[in-house]
Amino acid sequence: MADRELSFPTSLGTSDAKQIRLLGQDLAADLMGKVGFGELAYWLVAGRRPTRGEVRVFEAVLVALADHGFTPTAIAARLTYLSAPESLQGALAAGLLGGGSRFLGVTEDCGRFLHDVVQRLPEVPADDQGWDAVALEAVQRARAQDKLIPGLGHPVHKEQDPRTQVLIAIADEEGTRGPHLRLFEAIGRVHPQVLNRALPLNGAGVCGAALADLGLPVDLLRGFALLARAAGLLGHLAEERRNPVGMEIYLSVDRNALYQSPQDQ
Amino acid sequence: MADRELSFPTSLGTSDAKQIRLLGQDLAADLMGKVGFGELAYWLVAGRRPTRGEVRVFEAVLVALADHGFTPTAIAARLTYLSAPESLQGALAAGLLGGGSRFLGVTEDCGRFLHDVVQRLPEVPADDQGWDAVALEAVQRARAQDKLIPGLGHPVHKEQDPRTQVLIAIADEEGTRGPHLRLFEAIGRVHPQVLNRALPLNGAGVCGAALADLGLPVDLLRGFALLARAAGLLGHLAEERRNPVGMEIYLSVDRNALYQSPQDQ
Amino acid sequence: MADRELSFPTSLGTSDAKQIRLLGQDLAADLMGKVGFGELAYWLVAGRRPTRGEVRVFEAVLVALADHGFTPTAIAARLTYLSAPESLQGALAAGLLGGGSRFLGVTEDCGRFLHDVVQRLPEVPADDQGWDAVALEAVQRARAQDKLIPGLGHPVHKEQDPRTQVLIAIADEEGTRGPHLRLFEAIGRVHPQVLNRALPLNGAGVCGAALADLGLPVDLLRGFALLARAAGLLGHLAEERRNPVGMEIYLSVDRNALYQSPQDQ
Amino acid sequence: MADRELSFPTSLGTSDAKQIRLLGQDLAADLMGKVGFGELAYWLVAGRRPTRGEVRVFEAVLVALADHGFTPTAIAARLTYLSAPESLQGALAAGLLGGGSRFLGVTEDCGRFLHDVVQRLPEVPADDQGWDAVALEAVQRARAQDKLIPGLGHPVHKEQDPRTQVLIAIADEEGTRGPHLRLFEAIGRVHPQVLNRALPLNGAGVCGAALADLGLPVDLLRGFALLARAAGLLGHLAEERRNPVGMEIYLSVDRNALYQSPQDQ
Repeated sequence: MADRELSFPTSLGTSDAKQIRLLGQDLAADLMGKVGFGELAYWLVAGRRPTRGEVRVFEAVLVALADHGFTPTAIAARLTYLSAPESLQGALAAGLLGGGSRFLGVTEDCGRFLHDVVQRLPEVPADDQGWDAVALEAVQRARAQDKLIPGLGHPVHKEQDPRTQVLIAIADEEGTRGPHLRLFEAIGRVHPQVLNRALPLNGAGVCGAALADLGLPVDLLRGFALLARAAGLLGHLAEERRNPVGMEIYLSVDRNALYQSPQDQ
Repeated sequence: MADRELSFPTSLGTSDAKQIRLLGQDLAADLMGKVGFGELAYWLVAGRRPTRGEVRVFEAVLVALADHGFTPTAIAARLTYLSAPESLQGALAAGLLGGGSRFLGVTEDCGRFLHDVVQRLPEVPADDQGWDAVALEAVQRARAQDKLIPGLGHPVHKEQDPRTQVLIAIADEEGTRGPHLRLFEAIGRVHPQVLNRALPLNGAGVCGAALADLGLPVDLLRGFALLARAAGLLGHLAEERRNPVGMEIYLSVDRNALYQSPQDQ
Repeated sequence: MADRELSFPTSLGTSDAKQIRLLGQDLAADLMGKVGFGELAYWLVAGRRPTRGEVRVFEAVLVALADHGFTPTAIAARLTYLSAPESLQGALAAGLLGGGSRFLGVTEDCGRFLHDVVQRLPEVPADDQGWDAVALEAVQRARAQDKLIPGLGHPVHKEQDPRTQVLIAIADEEGTRGPHLRLFEAIGRVHPQVLNRALPLNGAGVCGAALADLGLPVDLLRGFALLARAAGLLGHLAEERRNPVGMEIYLSVDRNALYQSPQDQ
Repeated sequence: MADRELSFPTSLGTSDAKQIRLLGQDLAADLMGKVGFGELAYWLVAGRRPTRGEVRVFEAVLVALADHGFTPTAIAARLTYLSAPESLQGALAAGLLGGGSRFLGVTEDCGRFLHDVVQRLPEVPADDQGWDAVALEAVQRARAQDKLIPGLGHPVHKEQDPRTQVLIAIADEEGTRGPHLRLFEAIGRVHPQVLNRALPLNGAGVCGAALADLGLPVDLLRGFALLARAAGLLGHLAEERRNPVGMEIYLSVDRNALYQSPQDQ
């Protein structure tokens, strides 16, 4: 292996003594002060600069997903900060590590489910009636395979998730309400025929649909939920610094520990 | 400990069946589509909504810090994704864990250094001459204690870091060029008198100064560098998915491993 | 929710002013100096004290999995240590995060594959011929479903993995060579009939089989690979401290970065 | 940079088609089944094979530090497992990230404090009286600098930590009760003269002293606490799988959240 063969291509950041380039742009001259942070995050992942409308939808998603109060991930971040306050990166990382299948994966699962249906369509339906037929078949197929339909139902918002209609309206205003959102809406209309009960379209699901309509890779949708959550976790760590509750959480568990013999578990 | 005593105060997210609230606002009605993502991140940490000018400076900082190409943290994230592609959160967390003292800590160290000087000032200097005197004393004191002055010098941008003047100009335009930036600029002018050589004010340092002038807590400045880097790492992971280099990096190390007896180390 | 309802059962550690108890034992009087570390790790997961023979097999597995040189996980840990040397826990965590499906998951995947077959057997075969029939059917079924048989093949040890026979022999000596290892050995004998080529039984796979024969939960087998790797990573971090290579690895990538337009990827 | 210059020395793992070597040994022939896991961990970090007595002391330390029940780190690991059960490595990493200055750092801090004193001694004291004089001066100096003496005091074991005398006795039996433990014991005798109250020598501290007497690098002592804790965390995750409490912990916090205006914090 000769070194001239060592070559690591990238379209992200490079620099020399005079200039820092990012995504082929001059970072200082063309990006700082001219490009928003959400816009840059989109550009970094998609490899193309988003339009103003796409940025608005994208940032609405990030805002929707940033924080949900004392989630397991927020508690894990606070307890890690309590134990290792000198390492803010460790507390943030611990919080993000909970961004897996259960509490943060719905966005990606829903985007992927919709994407799988959409990309198999011979042609895109022309109206809601057409989407309803596609949705009905998709829900029936999932049901026949004993699979969950991601994006349906919410433990707290049992009737309606307040984020859902708002995000659809924003996407509509900005011209990005595409096949993934339309299919998701249709699932919302038809699923009671199959499941025999009406579940709300949840916020994490609608975010996945909206991101997929922006053309972002469905395998990386969880990444945007994580980016959004990084901001929320910084909020928790800032609050933990001002007004700590981590010690109280820890003690409320430790004081209520009950020894049990392994045989009894 | 009676449970009614269990109470975990927070000013971040709360929700009930009808509404999700964040920072005291109605998430769906007041924030989604109306507040940018950078703006929300600032609000979450500072506990107050920033002005439009503050947001522009803040986002310019995040843009400046998002990516620097194949840094150790970007490589660590890519190698982790190579090993565990099913866990995007793990790859992102691994990358952020390198956000410590050496490669990402300058922002916080610089903000804190400046803040320590600024908060001890009996009164804020009226002009550059006044700031130069403050800066000279601060640099001399650090020097006498064998401490580094954070924010000076850069391994690549040996003469000038292109981000520095641009960020100062943005802060000036937006009216947030306050005591931390002024002191930092003064350090740039006077340090050659003490150190006997001229070093550029680096980008990480000017970012710390600008964030401190925004009134953000200096103990959490590293957090913003981490948030910015989270976006950059997502860019690396998206690129690794499209155009992987992780395996080649791994093999370039493994193939060039040279066994050495422990006694010889 | 009244607090008396708050109760968190555990059979692990508890303590009061006079005593620390772990697994129902007096930590200081009964465990320290009397129980080995591997033995304790086994006990903590299994909820029962292992026999001396079980400990020997278990520790042989941990020794087998502890280190494989400059793996992606070892490189990620070293680069994280380079960036954040003040946070050893962060470097260790970054290394462990690569312990996913590709480079460290074979142990668990293999154990689970064998377990799924074994637990469906109406009765355990009496001899190698009986195991061969079971193995043949399992390999054929996996093949028909286009599934990989975990534990077969190795990128470096193309003919024979030196760990495999040694671990089987140790398990045999200690009386723990049970159905999972026997099935794995049978797969080694019969798979060429189905795959039309002979692959070695690899070390990660045989470790999974041996752990499953110890009665450890197959959903947690990856955990033992992670524990073993934690020791290996500490070795890398100790070596990185004595004789660093992280900076050289980073520079060998960064210096060979090649900018590419996003459109060309 | 020519590739022949690329060379990454290591004394850990290497392999070729026939053999896997670790620490200069044949992994399969010389280590598996012949070397215990604790012994290997010691060897990996120290670069030399420990004696049988050293292994016993070392493993007693790991056993002492493995678990302390529902610590913040154990809770963080369980909550991460609740959120992302598919990624055991993430839950383990999240738990280890709390292994910082407050809850797991005492071992390293104490070892380093003792080491700093010991290495400045012109000669090693001959008897307890000599050690008492050294200890008295060290405690007085720390006190004069407003520094804490690490290893003194415990929130639960207010009079005596049951691990301390046991570990000293084991080290004594094995001939590894050296200057660090003797100094630590002396601090236990003399500190009331300076602090005007008697605090117990705690378990984390005595572990740091014992590890330092084994000749292990004081900068890496936290690493052994992390290794020990990795086993304890696996115990928690195994228990969480059998008998989950994570959801109940999360709900006990979330249900008791109390919204507070940012201005009131």
